[in-house]
Amino acid sequence: MEIENINVSSYPNSTKTYVKGKIHPIQVAMRTIHQYPTVKIIDGVRIETPNEDVTVYDTSGPYTDPNIEIDINKGLPRIRQKWVEQRDDTVTLEDITSEYGRLRRSMPELDAIRFPVEHKPRRAKEGLRVTQMHYARKGIITPEMEYVAIRENLDNERRGIKTHITPEFVRDEIASGRAIIAANINHPEAEPMIIGSAFSVKLNTNIGNSALSSGIEEEVAKAVWSCYWGGDTLMDLSTGDNIHETREWIIRNCPVPVGTVPIYQALEKVNGDVGKLTWEIYRDTLIEQCEQGVDYFTIHAGVLREHADLIEQRLTGCVSRGGSIMTQWCVLHNQESFLYMHFDEICEILNKYDVAVSLGDGMRPGSIHDANDRAQFLELEVLGKLTEKAWAHDVQVLIEGPGHVPMNKIKANMDKQVKACHSAPFYTLGPLTTDIAPGYDHITSAIGAAIISNLGTAMICYVTPKEHLSLPDLNDVRDGVIAYKIAAHAADLAKGFPGAEIRDDALSKARYEFRWKDQFNLSLDPAKAKQYYLDARRNAPDADDRFCTMCGPNFCAMRISQSITEKCKE
Amino acid sequence: MEIENINVSSYPNSTKTYVKGKIHPIQVAMRTIHQYPTVKIIDGVRIETPNEDVTVYDTSGPYTDPNIEIDINKGLPRIRQKWVEQRDDTVTLEDITSEYGRLRRSMPELDAIRFPVEHKPRRAKEGLRVTQMHYARKGIITPEMEYVAIRENLDNERRGIKTHITPEFVRDEIASGRAIIAANINHPEAEPMIIGSAFSVKLNTNIGNSALSSGIEEEVAKAVWSCYWGGDTLMDLSTGDNIHETREWIIRNCPVPVGTVPIYQALEKVNGDVGKLTWEIYRDTLIEQCEQGVDYFTIHAGVLREHADLIEQRLTGCVSRGGSIMTQWCVLHNQESFLYMHFDEICEILNKYDVAVSLGDGMRPGSIHDANDRAQFLELEVLGKLTEKAWAHDVQVLIEGPGHVPMNKIKANMDKQVKACHSAPFYTLGPLTTDIAPGYDHITSAIGAAIISNLGTAMICYVTPKEHLSLPDLNDVRDGVIAYKIAAHAADLAKGFPGAEIRDDALSKARYEFRWKDQFNLSLDPAKAKQYYLDARRNAPDADDRFCTMCGPNFCAMRISQSITEKCKE
Repeated sequence: MEIENINVSSYPNSTKTYVKGKIHPIQVAMRTIHQYPTVKIIDGVRIETPNEDVTVYDTSGPYTDPNIEIDINKGLPRIRQKWVEQRDDTVTLEDITSEYGRLRRSMPELDAIRFPVEHKPRRAKEGLRVTQMHYARKGIITPEMEYVAIRENLDNERRGIKTHITPEFVRDEIASGRAIIAANINHPEAEPMIIGSAFSVKLNTNIGNSALSSGIEEEVAKAVWSCYWGGDTLMDLSTGDNIHETREWIIRNCPVPVGTVPIYQALEKVNGDVGKLTWEIYRDTLIEQCEQGVDYFTIHAGVLREHADLIEQRLTGCVSRGGSIMTQWCVLHNQESFLYMHFDEICEILNKYDVAVSLGDGMRPGSIHDANDRAQFLELEVLGKLTEKAWAHDVQVLIEGPGHVPMNKIKANMDKQVKACHSAPFYTLGPLTTDIAPGYDHITSAIGAAIISNLGTAMICYVTPKEHLSLPDLNDVRDGVIAYKIAAHAADLAKGFPGAEIRDDALSKARYEFRWKDQFNLSLDPAKAKQYYLDARRNAPDADDRFCTMCGPNFCAMRISQSITEKCKE
Repeated sequence: MEIENINVSSYPNSTKTYVKGKIHPIQVAMRTIHQYPTVKIIDGVRIETPNEDVTVYDTSGPYTDPNIEIDINKGLPRIRQKWVEQRDDTVTLEDITSEYGRLRRSMPELDAIRFPVEHKPRRAKEGLRVTQMHYARKGIITPEMEYVAIRENLDNERRGIKTHITPEFVRDEIASGRAIIAANINHPEAEPMIIGSAFSVKLNTNIGNSALSSGIEEEVAKAVWSCYWGGDTLMDLSTGDNIHETREWIIRNCPVPVGTVPIYQALEKVNGDVGKLTWEIYRDTLIEQCEQGVDYFTIHAGVLREHADLIEQRLTGCVSRGGSIMTQWCVLHNQESFLYMHFDEICEILNKYDVAVSLGDGMRPGSIHDANDRAQFLELEVLGKLTEKAWAHDVQVLIEGPGHVPMNKIKANMDKQVKACHSAPFYTLGPLTTDIAPGYDHITSAIGAAIISNLGTAMICYVTPKEHLSLPDLNDVRDGVIAYKIAAHAADLAKGFPGAEIRDDALSKARYEFRWKDQFNLSLDPAKAKQYYLDARRNAPDADDRFCTMCGPNFCAMRISQSITEKCKE
């Protein structure tokens, strides 16, 4: 397969750097941005003062390392494979367990779209649990834990910046459930990352086809693209054709943890007929995906039969796909949800592969009107109980949150989540702070996402400009990711996350000194910043560089400001 | 002159409506959005339930009224002219007062770009003050005050929504200085609007040419365009050629208050040589602009000589154009700023035309690093003293605020402003909550703008995607305005502004009922929402309308949710 749209390469004036572990023989990938020197002409003499490199968090994986050859048909290097093997608590299965998976594999008509390399799945040895939480509770610092500790700190050590993040701290946060490392043993291609309120705020991107659009190539391209721009995790929400094969391609080529909502595929297996969904079909789907390497599952186990009555009182009912499916199932069968009833069994599957559970908010409000209502908060209480259950099985937990919430109701969401769910990491969709801007919901929601992250939300799920209207294309993915990088970073700054301000300060210094290239290279989207600048300069080709393209030379405050400082020093 | 880019027309499925005053014979313009009925098929019978009209705040003036003929060469109807005349406290001047204005008028080479209609300026009768604050303090409810009271309430009265906003309340807020109506007697084309923390949050847009770009036609087109999308006020920040003539075209065609920074033009008059600026040149510029009809002036009178030393300690010095000019002037002359020294005289000019003063924050931080530093807060204290002075002259006051501020330092800005400046309305640029996203600063700043508006900021100054890089084009203006409409409206919702949620609820109801056209028409940017939707539907022409284009029919949560509700009712 050739993916035409994958045209990512290394970032401008940056080097992929690897920091070695001290406990484990690991190499933690980062990006180092180089800067040009500051140049001053003093008494006719040109004096150059170097500007320090800036190291930034890098989610792009091998795609931006010119020393690694990328072949979509082979998949990424399996960096965690050795770590998993060396723990000696898993076995390689002779065959995949899922009946559906075997069925798909047996269909010759799928050969053309099947990922070319087959990896045999691994599973915990009989009776063992292989989750990061399990290890943490035993006091073990895994390579994954050391990896994220180093990754979060970037070059804080070299700069002498005080940090609370050590491998021991990571271990303790995971043991307590306050943070997770979503790292399925069958997705060894992913670089470990941590989600928790004590760490830098993460962002999730959603991709996936629907009945209306999009093929495998397009989805893989979107996945790589979203990692390039800064997506920390990736949810494949496909509901269209060939979900199984599409996912395989994505996982094998994805350097970040991959999440799914297994009920979507289960529903496809019964041709969209909710009434025909069964626990057995769902269970087989979980195992199928566990063995492919999905790192976390959204499971709407907090949706109960009684929610059907509560959503009638809403303006916009239930706007969660998974939530509406499960509510409908409960009503059709007049039974409690099979996800809720079989939750312990689910956990016993997940802890054999180390798949985290992201407890879905099936009752998230779909409008300002419905925010913080009883349907929503009742579910949150249920999620708290399920969190306790999952933790009893050493399964790592995320809690999903809203949705549409006006700014004055955001804090209550965070406070209730922390209390009900015992400080399990909160993972919110926005929230959108108004309903009136379809076409711009990356902005309505970036506002809410920044606010709730500052209050302690660990991961924010991006919203693209196409939300409510269409599936995102590559441009929308880029816009959505950057909007959420902004929200996440604004929260890191506000929380005083160690070293967070280094990049801001470096960029602002470059801006003030008219080092335009450094300003672009240090920015979240160097290509766009540079393009805007060049478009403006096209109209003024003779102008020198020492003023801002907004105001022209006479009105450049920074230019005047510098001359004042020079004057004062005379 | 023909303005090719002015292609605004009435909004989709909307009517320009006028609400009559009860005290004065005024007609308050609003926009009424009509909706389609909700259609249900019950037992084969089609049942239509009508959906109520939604009335929204409309800043577009006559441009969206099909009954008013627009001719850019004649200017807009002068709706306030009678109100001003009937107060009988002003006189029509035989000639313009400004020397520079007379000089420009005498230059035949400017005939080609001069606005074709000449209006003689008005000024207060000798010894009188003609400001809205003056009237309010005398207990008078002017037509302008009644206008804004009606305008803020939209159709709250008809809907029975409780409101605190009455003409008397407006008067009291203006008398106290907590709100302003910027309404120069020489800009009778503008529809009155109010800026104050007890009212809906307003947004300002900036346009204006620079030495690098843009002619008169383009600036007028931008002005109309920004009003169409929702700009409440408009600053003309031109620093290029023909500032005087450009401004005349803008004011005569602008339905919202126009602001300027007079020091820019004063500096152009001395060819950009800061050392040659004098109080006399500045004074003549003020009068020139007062008589053209500028509604508010940004005056950086809080920048003092001692600021020159303080900005040396900053990462990004002084990033305010006016602030840097005045600091440089102080340093060059080793004197206190002439704006500060002549502030009483300035106020005595302004109160003869009712021009409000927007006390500029010349020391606003230009980077996260410099936020809330001594240079910034020292100036804020000075602005507080100047506020008292202005109020003593019955001059209405706005206080300008930052800038670049991380989220955790925003509240301190608001609190200090309220205290230092005695609750005069705060008018902030963003603030930008991180420095690292040039190309996306409409988003970095919409986050800060939403937060600070929720805390009480009365008006937010938009930032476009081109901030730091270039002057905005029409698309950037649209993007900037919509981002700020979102921030402003999110704050109105969070503050519980009377009736604010009506539009959200109507749009969400339309969305839930798959009334796509209503969803678009109720949105901030109907054209964009519709386009995104149609692009997606192009791939699925046979699909019916009753599902969302994101998820396809089987996975449409809203469709499932509705069927649950129907099932439950059975």
